[in-house]
Amino acid sequence: MRPSKRQPDEMRAISFERGVSKHAEGSCMVKFGDTHVLCTASLEERVPGWLRNSGKGWVTAEYGMLPRSTGDRMRREASSGKQGGRTLEIQRLIGRSLRSVVDLQALGEMQITVDCDVIQADGGTRTAAITGGFVALHDCLTWMHARQMINIERVLKDHVAAISCGIYDGNPVLDLDYAEDSAAETDANFVMTGKGGIVEIQGTAEGEAFSEDQFGQLMGLAKQGIKRLVELQKMAVA
Amino acid sequence: MRPSKRQPDEMRAISFERGVSKHAEGSCMVKFGDTHVLCTASLEERVPGWLRNSGKGWVTAEYGMLPRSTGDRMRREASSGKQGGRTLEIQRLIGRSLRSVVDLQALGEMQITVDCDVIQADGGTRTAAITGGFVALHDCLTWMHARQMINIERVLKDHVAAISCGIYDGNPVLDLDYAEDSAAETDANFVMTGKGGIVEIQGTAEGEAFSEDQFGQLMGLAKQGIKRLVELQKMAVA
Amino acid sequence: MRPSKRQPDEMRAISFERGVSKHAEGSCMVKFGDTHVLCTASLEERVPGWLRNSGKGWVTAEYGMLPRSTGDRMRREASSGKQGGRTLEIQRLIGRSLRSVVDLQALGEMQITVDCDVIQADGGTRTAAITGGFVALHDCLTWMHARQMINIERVLKDHVAAISCGIYDGNPVLDLDYAEDSAAETDANFVMTGKGGIVEIQGTAEGEAFSEDQFGQLMGLAKQGIKRLVELQKMAVA
Amino acid sequence: MRPSKRQPDEMRAISFERGVSKHAEGSCMVKFGDTHVLCTASLEERVPGWLRNSGKGWVTAEYGMLPRSTGDRMRREASSGKQGGRTLEIQRLIGRSLRSVVDLQALGEMQITVDCDVIQADGGTRTAAITGGFVALHDCLTWMHARQMINIERVLKDHVAAISCGIYDGNPVLDLDYAEDSAAETDANFVMTGKGGIVEIQGTAEGEAFSEDQFGQLMGLAKQGIKRLVELQKMAVA
Amino acid sequence: MRPSKRQPDEMRAISFERGVSKHAEGSCMVKFGDTHVLCTASLEERVPGWLRNSGKGWVTAEYGMLPRSTGDRMRREASSGKQGGRTLEIQRLIGRSLRSVVDLQALGEMQITVDCDVIQADGGTRTAAITGGFVALHDCLTWMHARQMINIERVLKDHVAAISCGIYDGNPVLDLDYAEDSAAETDANFVMTGKGGIVEIQGTAEGEAFSEDQFGQLMGLAKQGIKRLVELQKMAVA
Amino acid sequence: MRPSKRQPDEMRAISFERGVSKHAEGSCMVKFGDTHVLCTASLEERVPGWLRNSGKGWVTAEYGMLPRSTGDRMRREASSGKQGGRTLEIQRLIGRSLRSVVDLQALGEMQITVDCDVIQADGGTRTAAITGGFVALHDCLTWMHARQMINIERVLKDHVAAISCGIYDGNPVLDLDYAEDSAAETDANFVMTGKGGIVEIQGTAEGEAFSEDQFGQLMGLAKQGIKRLVELQKMAVA
Repeated sequence: MRPSKRQPDEMRAISFERGVSKHAEGSCMVKFGDTHVLCTASLEERVPGWLRNSGKGWVTAEYGMLPRSTGDRMRREASSGKQGGRTLEIQRLIGRSLRSVVDLQALGEMQITVDCDVIQADGGTRTAAITGGFVALHDCLTWMHARQMINIERVLKDHVAAISCGIYDGNPVLDLDYAEDSAAETDANFVMTGKGGIVEIQGTAEGEAFSEDQFGQLMGLAKQGIKRLVELQKMAVA
Repeated sequence: MRPSKRQPDEMRAISFERGVSKHAEGSCMVKFGDTHVLCTASLEERVPGWLRNSGKGWVTAEYGMLPRSTGDRMRREASSGKQGGRTLEIQRLIGRSLRSVVDLQALGEMQITVDCDVIQADGGTRTAAITGGFVALHDCLTWMHARQMINIERVLKDHVAAISCGIYDGNPVLDLDYAEDSAAETDANFVMTGKGGIVEIQGTAEGEAFSEDQFGQLMGLAKQGIKRLVELQKMAVA
Repeated sequence: MRPSKRQPDEMRAISFERGVSKHAEGSCMVKFGDTHVLCTASLEERVPGWLRNSGKGWVTAEYGMLPRSTGDRMRREASSGKQGGRTLEIQRLIGRSLRSVVDLQALGEMQITVDCDVIQADGGTRTAAITGGFVALHDCLTWMHARQMINIERVLKDHVAAISCGIYDGNPVLDLDYAEDSAAETDANFVMTGKGGIVEIQGTAEGEAFSEDQFGQLMGLAKQGIKRLVELQKMAVA
Repeated sequence: MRPSKRQPDEMRAISFERGVSKHAEGSCMVKFGDTHVLCTASLEERVPGWLRNSGKGWVTAEYGMLPRSTGDRMRREASSGKQGGRTLEIQRLIGRSLRSVVDLQALGEMQITVDCDVIQADGGTRTAAITGGFVALHDCLTWMHARQMINIERVLKDHVAAISCGIYDGNPVLDLDYAEDSAAETDANFVMTGKGGIVEIQGTAEGEAFSEDQFGQLMGLAKQGIKRLVELQKMAVA
Repeated sequence: MRPSKRQPDEMRAISFERGVSKHAEGSCMVKFGDTHVLCTASLEERVPGWLRNSGKGWVTAEYGMLPRSTGDRMRREASSGKQGGRTLEIQRLIGRSLRSVVDLQALGEMQITVDCDVIQADGGTRTAAITGGFVALHDCLTWMHARQMINIERVLKDHVAAISCGIYDGNPVLDLDYAEDSAAETDANFVMTGKGGIVEIQGTAEGEAFSEDQFGQLMGLAKQGIKRLVELQKMAVA
Repeated sequence: MRPSKRQPDEMRAISFERGVSKHAEGSCMVKFGDTHVLCTASLEERVPGWLRNSGKGWVTAEYGMLPRSTGDRMRREASSGKQGGRTLEIQRLIGRSLRSVVDLQALGEMQITVDCDVIQADGGTRTAAITGGFVALHDCLTWMHARQMINIERVLKDHVAAISCGIYDGNPVLDLDYAEDSAAETDANFVMTGKGGIVEIQGTAEGEAFSEDQFGQLMGLAKQGIKRLVELQKMAVA
């Protein structure tokens, strides 16, 4: 039995609230149950130095947690003077995931930065950030399309979404909340496209090593979950 | 005529939404028009080193802006490796303001950190942070009172709230939004208690120096505005 | 009775020693009693990036304290790796104050940096820095005028000086020294021009809130003090 | 055809040179072809703060690259003032991997730090570091066993090794060198124990997403490669 | 001919002004011509961690330059976020030099920090800092002796002073000023005790290598100069 | 008797292994007994800003120690966020020493960075780094000569090598190892050219001051040692 009484293959309530920022070209407050992440997509005309005069654009991401988004207050990274390894790891993952569905050549020499700030955390913040970040990115590209800066059909090749799975109390379960995440034997994050292609897999044994079989079960759950997330994204941006 | 069509002594729509954080002992999303600040009050059992074994507690504040809370995306302070002078200045002001209505002796050796994170900015973020931070602090103390950790009557001596005023296009106006703030000749922030005592005054001439008379007019507006803010705080926490 | 036996409206002995630096275009050792601040004004031909090709110049300030300028040795900011919030707050104040009397357009695309380094501290370092920084700035502009780089009449619009006031032992007093500053109930800093215009006001209740009346008394003292400081500046640069 | 003419399932020449450091309790220069990583295991008697008085020990890792270990000289991280995201990500992975085969309770309150410094890089530095780091850790534990500080049989539960796989020019290949790594469509790292349990999986699509089938092929190659690495480790430490 | 018209073995005008700081236990403004260094010696009761409970004390030094102590304004180290290599090198040298004449056992578990801040620079700041730092240290020890905290006879074993020499325009000269320093072929700093013992020698060829003979000439000049500096120190502290 | 049983004027076994890096234009693993330093010389086409368009090139050095190159593990400088004073001091010394034998005009506008990373430390790492760094630099210049980028005869004016000497147990000895270094009364480093010119001298009294006579004995040993080192360099690069 899961702490939340959910079925093994049952995700939390998922919602996307678009247009939450007055300023950003695209924005989305994504909720996976009690995990709430504010995603904004900001258009900038300058690209990183190594892309200058290449004709190609860039999509990057930054991630942060508000100090009291968590059960115990965390030290503010701005105050400690650096972003921790976990933060850097997550924002690199979000950036790679979003780029996997963007044609950077078709985007042209512009940069979109997707900021994912965790307002409230209850497990799965990185998967929520990718899934909601896609919506913010989509809306930023729509904004650009409306201004004839790009052709969104050519720039955005597919959907992308992410979900976590894990082995909790011996059973494979989908979309771990914090209570499960901190007790899970194995924890895996999957990022997939709307067409079902795999973009990222990260699996970690917290205690004992896991078997190929168990990993296969997790992937099965993830495929099912991401299929549903993409449907929800489509409904949200329709 | 103000850009927002408001009367000179008219504040923006003010609202306090309490209990917005699942984790924090006290929390409040405060809105001054399009300026939205998430305030959380976090209780910690350890105090700063210089207060250890003094029997006295501490209230402190931290302030941050989400990168795209502003019209142009700002660099994330966690990524640039330090908090800027403006950030440090504001969070010191919030902390002093909140401490002015707390009896630190009656609080006892505990620390409350009030985090004020700007979700969306449209001028007046520091005054919104103080005004909403008070509500979060109040609710944290209520939480402690309910657990018989303190007697809130003895700890919380008064209300405290803040408002900006300025001279815009030659006229004194109350509660500047961003359009006014960036064009104002003079900009002043006032922090006052529920009983009308002054806690902080900060007045700055942006271009020409201002006169004592003009300053008196700003203070008149501020007194009126803060009186109204305290009424709204009282309704919110009733 | 004040610890220094001064009358409530009596400032400490004030002196300006000009030309104390062999290298700087303008320099001044300013003393407010035992508070000694070395101010140098340095001319640089490059302006900050956001002013390039604007035809406008810039005046900025930096502030520092020698480690043993204070009663107890403070940690050197260069060694701790960053400037503290108080330092940043003060140097922003000095810069704004000096810019309030400079016509940046008439200065032309050049930058003057006024460094204010506290050699010995006994309260009121920021007000001494502004008041002495003006003299260093004046002498730098005189140096430029002599070389026909600018017309000082057009660049320097007025004098600017600063003084602190406070409520000590229930009485409003002018120009607090350290003994008073650390015990004052209320502490305020005023920056005004030679013509009596107000440039900056910063008032802070250290313990109890203060009333509008009390603040009026402080402003009265400040006006009187700054009038005297400007007379002394005029004698110094005559 | 692979640039190195290797068969798809052929690893590079692997070697372990033990005892290369005069000072470290355990050390190993591991070579995967032209990738050379110096691994040292250092015993320290103090554990991180959160383990003090827990009776449990800790194994952690740090990773670095010499500036000219790579084709183009990289900036020295000590000089740039911080470790990059990639470095932090890799050293966290090495630490988790090594801890997966250590019984921290049986280790007792001591810490072992495994430093993995890349002397020469040609792809696969993180997998070489884990595989060679295990040998250094093993020798450190042997050193402790010989001094009757621990019982190595109880502390070290299994072997652990790692290998990369990828899809290069459309074909799944084992143990990518730099030429392959920089051109691969998909890149995956696997960490497994001697008994075949999976400890970590990280798969990334560099360009196009990959399919579940392709991922299965990579895992098949990895299992085969890690089996061989564990045999080589056993021969090395025999 | 030297730019200053001095004889090859002629030092600049040297002066020591003691007691220049109201707060420091010992202080001295030392001048070597236009090079002015403010030296303060601060007594602290805590020693570095590695000396705790050893019964031994510590003498350390810090060095800094005011931003406009030099011909061109230098960036403030507090603002750039770190002390440069030259600064660290010099303050380590000052510390070692002063410790060479102190019996740390006889000092007892206390720390004296000698801050040497360059108010105006014209070459030879490190040698002035050592020579004047000795006077500040002496006066701090006298202060302690007067309070029966130490016996200065036992703590302070000798005098210590420093001077630079160099080969300028082919000739060995004593006490280089900035004009000579920046053009010298060889530059050497000598630190010696009152009894003539050598504490530190640092010789550097700026362009061509120098010969043992030339070095001997520099040492001859240095011995003569330091002998005179020690006489001046003795007169100053008499 | 020296701990290593060496004669007073006997150096440790010295060896140079060239071409140890697959990537660097020049490289050398230098060993002075158990002190092992990996030196790589990297050619870059851009020079520091202050040399741009000057027609002159630059040779610089960086120095680092692997964390467990020493008896006790040291904290990694990349992780502590800055290079210590000793590191900066040493890398400045290496750079100056190597530049003393290079004609920067003849090199042309290119930069060579010599990285000296201590793989294992047993005293004398800086002298080994200079001596081996010369070999790496030589091979980098040979590489450039072979590609007709420079004429090595004109660029490389001489050999340069370095050795330490000290007074151990009352006797002057050559090439201190760690056991001697940590107990020596006086420690001196000499850098000289193949023609016998002196480039750098650094002598430090660790406890008692030393006499001119003693210093002369150390210099005598150094001349003899460096003569031998230059012979060995010549054999190595022949």
